[in-house]
Amino acid sequence: MMKKITLAACALVVAGSAFAIEPDKAIKFRQAGYSYMSWNMSKIKDNVEGTYKQAEVIAAANTIAAIANSGMGALYVPGSEKDVGNVKTYVRPEFFSKPQEVARIAQSFNKEANELARIAATGSSAEVKEQFGKVGGTCKACHDDFKMKN
Amino acid sequence: MMKKITLAACALVVAGSAFAIEPDKAIKFRQAGYSYMSWNMSKIKDNVEGTYKQAEVIAAANTIAAIANSGMGALYVPGSEKDVGNVKTYVRPEFFSKPQEVARIAQSFNKEANELARIAATGSSAEVKEQFGKVGGTCKACHDDFKMKN
Repeated sequence: MMKKITLAACALVVAGSAFAIEPDKAIKFRQAGYSYMSWNMSKIKDNVEGTYKQAEVIAAANTIAAIANSGMGALYVPGSEKDVGNVKTYVRPEFFSKPQEVARIAQSFNKEANELARIAATGSSAEVKEQFGKVGGTCKACHDDFKMKN
Repeated sequence: MMKKITLAACALVVAGSAFAIEPDKAIKFRQAGYSYMSWNMSKIKDNVEGTYKQAEVIAAANTIAAIANSGMGALYVPGSEKDVGNVKTYVRPEFFSKPQEVARIAQSFNKEANELARIAATGSSAEVKEQFGKVGGTCKACHDDFKMKN
């Protein structure tokens, strides 16, 4: 009877939280989000270093901001701190043991990514270039502290 | 001499177009975009079928629309119509031989995805659910015609 209640309680917790996603899927989805942001970062880099195409920069900056705002934190579910079968994660264990430091870097990234989208809408190539550097700095800060070399 | 000129001309064409991206990277980036959209679609599905959390739906719908607007067409570069090493593509060959049909479906998807983001901002769960179905229909239309079963 006790076991039954405990299981039911667990099921409720799982169903009512973002933790319903399986660890291997969570790893794949967060990698997809970072990968797609990296393509859009590379497009902005090409624009500010070469011919500036405003529409392309706006679309890329909006994509990075939208992904930054999409709640990726929900993809760091229990079980996703290590490889699952052949699904490999490059997140370092420290990511899961230093939530306050992670939150600080994540908030900084979100702030700069949204600012980049705001500036891209009306700003010059030089203004976008400056803000692009700030976003890249927040990417690097997290990679330095929390991403394995791969 | 002739060879040198031809190589130089090719380099110019590649550098000046969206085709500068390597086929294997293009395949990975487009798969990342679709994968990240699918996670956000699943979140909207959970919301319209369960407890409706407007902020989560807005963030998810904005992400799908931003990715839809991000110019994924640039990721279908020559060489990416088939597997590259161990990077497998699930796009069917017809995708590359029927550009008008692909464009029609892509435009339909973009229209419905942007409409979903517009409705999510202020609409009810029922209104979002209806538009979510339309977006899903455009996903399915493309998968049915142009995606391998995997």
